[in-house]
Amino acid sequence: MTLIAEPKSMHFEPPLPLRSGATVRGYDLAYETYGSLNADRSNAVLVCHALNASHHVAGVYAGQDRSEGWWDTMIGPGKPVDTDRFFVIGVNNLGSCFGSTGPMHLNPDTGRVYGADFPVVTVEDWVDAQARLLDGLGIEQLAAVMGGSLGGMQALSWTLQYPQRVRHAAVIASAPNLTAENIAFNEVARRAIVTDPDFHGGHFYQHGVVPQRGLRIARMIGHITYLSDDVMNERFGRQLRSGLDFRYTTQDIEFQIESYLRYQGDKFSEYFDANTYLLITRALDYFDPASRHDGSLSKALAAATARFLLVSFTTDWRFSPHRSREIVKALLDNHRTCSYAEIDAPHGHDAFLLEDPRYLSVVRAWFDRIAAEFGR
Amino acid sequence: MTLIAEPKSMHFEPPLPLRSGATVRGYDLAYETYGSLNADRSNAVLVCHALNASHHVAGVYAGQDRSEGWWDTMIGPGKPVDTDRFFVIGVNNLGSCFGSTGPMHLNPDTGRVYGADFPVVTVEDWVDAQARLLDGLGIEQLAAVMGGSLGGMQALSWTLQYPQRVRHAAVIASAPNLTAENIAFNEVARRAIVTDPDFHGGHFYQHGVVPQRGLRIARMIGHITYLSDDVMNERFGRQLRSGLDFRYTTQDIEFQIESYLRYQGDKFSEYFDANTYLLITRALDYFDPASRHDGSLSKALAAATARFLLVSFTTDWRFSPHRSREIVKALLDNHRTCSYAEIDAPHGHDAFLLEDPRYLSVVRAWFDRIAAEFGR
Repeated sequence: MTLIAEPKSMHFEPPLPLRSGATVRGYDLAYETYGSLNADRSNAVLVCHALNASHHVAGVYAGQDRSEGWWDTMIGPGKPVDTDRFFVIGVNNLGSCFGSTGPMHLNPDTGRVYGADFPVVTVEDWVDAQARLLDGLGIEQLAAVMGGSLGGMQALSWTLQYPQRVRHAAVIASAPNLTAENIAFNEVARRAIVTDPDFHGGHFYQHGVVPQRGLRIARMIGHITYLSDDVMNERFGRQLRSGLDFRYTTQDIEFQIESYLRYQGDKFSEYFDANTYLLITRALDYFDPASRHDGSLSKALAAATARFLLVSFTTDWRFSPHRSREIVKALLDNHRTCSYAEIDAPHGHDAFLLEDPRYLSVVRAWFDRIAAEFGR
Repeated sequence: MTLIAEPKSMHFEPPLPLRSGATVRGYDLAYETYGSLNADRSNAVLVCHALNASHHVAGVYAGQDRSEGWWDTMIGPGKPVDTDRFFVIGVNNLGSCFGSTGPMHLNPDTGRVYGADFPVVTVEDWVDAQARLLDGLGIEQLAAVMGGSLGGMQALSWTLQYPQRVRHAAVIASAPNLTAENIAFNEVARRAIVTDPDFHGGHFYQHGVVPQRGLRIARMIGHITYLSDDVMNERFGRQLRSGLDFRYTTQDIEFQIESYLRYQGDKFSEYFDANTYLLITRALDYFDPASRHDGSLSKALAAATARFLLVSFTTDWRFSPHRSREIVKALLDNHRTCSYAEIDAPHGHDAFLLEDPRYLSVVRAWFDRIAAEFGR
């Protein structure tokens, strides 16, 4: 049976205090829910998204073929996160560009579009905003919070900010903070956007333009880091786009990999907001729970009481397995319950979004155990 | 004793046929030499440069402190490549921007600046041009050709194009071709340059501007790939630029690694030619001697008769050790003499330019053996 998704929105009037010291008020969060909340409200699962995703996690929109949610392989009726048993919530983060309030919306304090003045948001701020959404939905405690990549950072942060509100946490293809190299890639992407003459200091909306050149470059860089060297060689290798002979050109496409990257960049630049890109990469940069505990992740995770699932992928060089193992170690230092799966997959960071039977069966088994706790 | 370097230039009037089918005529090659050619002209060593380097390989310019050549740790009196024994030649490649004829010079056929019309050059074309330089210097056979990275590709190509003219070849931190990921990084850098509004289709000289935004991005991307994740974490980690607290900004610098990358990008954009960047990254993309032998590197290297030294560095993820091992294997398949050193160094691809005692002593021992052949 096809799961039909319906986007919803919740308005929040009171100011949300942010880690930067700023506040944001009068904002909306776009969200979707799948399945039914049980009588004692104990079966809710919150799904947190990464850089480029949204609240549309699973199912399709009525009458729109091929509108599958970004984690539709994972979530739905009979799927690893079974919506016949769980009440699953997808939410678009504050500052994103898929329905929740972000830089392209009006600032109620000034009546003008936020643009570059949208306040810097952190993973912790997003979790606070998500907690308010749960309040609005009447959910006191989550059966589980889950996310991949930046979404995994939010899941981890939930267990630290609201330990009593989350019984389980699935942290997938994630890390306890970014390395210098991760930050470096984010910074190049941001510079490409910010130095695009069409960026206009972030107030491009009022000029009727979009910094598409910068967004294209940002996305191309991102794409390289999402894939593994192996899968790139397998899918593209040194294949030429046309025929067998070189055309000897510096500006035109010669190799298939170039064609692929340009296509990805073009597509992205048509729908993604440039200010959102800056905000979300910064949220990634800033996340570092250990920093408030003398750099000790073990001390930081002492606050967590949830039971954990950690998953990493062998060829993921953006958030490599050893970053997940750091989290596992810190949890074990605190005698927490933690399952860890390192999946041998060729697809790099992207693997967490793909249909790998071993990966999906690990997640399924873990959620089955959670479902057994409330007898479904 | 300080080695004093003197830049020289040689003019070539006859057309050089290029792999693209085009020719270039009336061009100059900038070069330098160190040490003395011996009586039987058997002690010449040609040094080939990588993307960002030049003919200024060793020594300093008179009266200019801190003008050391880019491989001054390696080459000079008493150094691993000892200029008291060898006659060392550094040459700037055709299409580069440090003295040899390139895109910013006049096309003798049109009387106009080449700009984007400078013909696409390949590693093989460069080797042909270098062979003409040796003709001009009266050197029939090289004691050795050597190079790192793209320079290593030229050294390898020398042994295939002119097997009788080269007795030894040192191929350092190099590869038999680029992977899809390597090409992808080059392509993003090129797109950043080409889509900079100041690029003007490559004819920016006549507009009195330089596509500095694009060059900055290109260099930042390059720099990330030259360093290892390890050395980046060690040197920069998550260190903030100022103080201990986040400033919460998307456009200003927050982390030291951002400051470093921006500095590298700014510096590079002030001296490097944008068209040269396109040409040189394309020469990298195109190099693939196996492609003319059904993809078999073993078949391709059957033509080589030189004795080889291969060196790679454990943390080099741009040209990783397994790429060097492919060359070693292909040479051994052909029963060629080959020494191979895999240096355990934390510095990534950059390691080939740095002063690592184990690395330098391997190269020294190899050149000592060559010197013994002609009794010096």
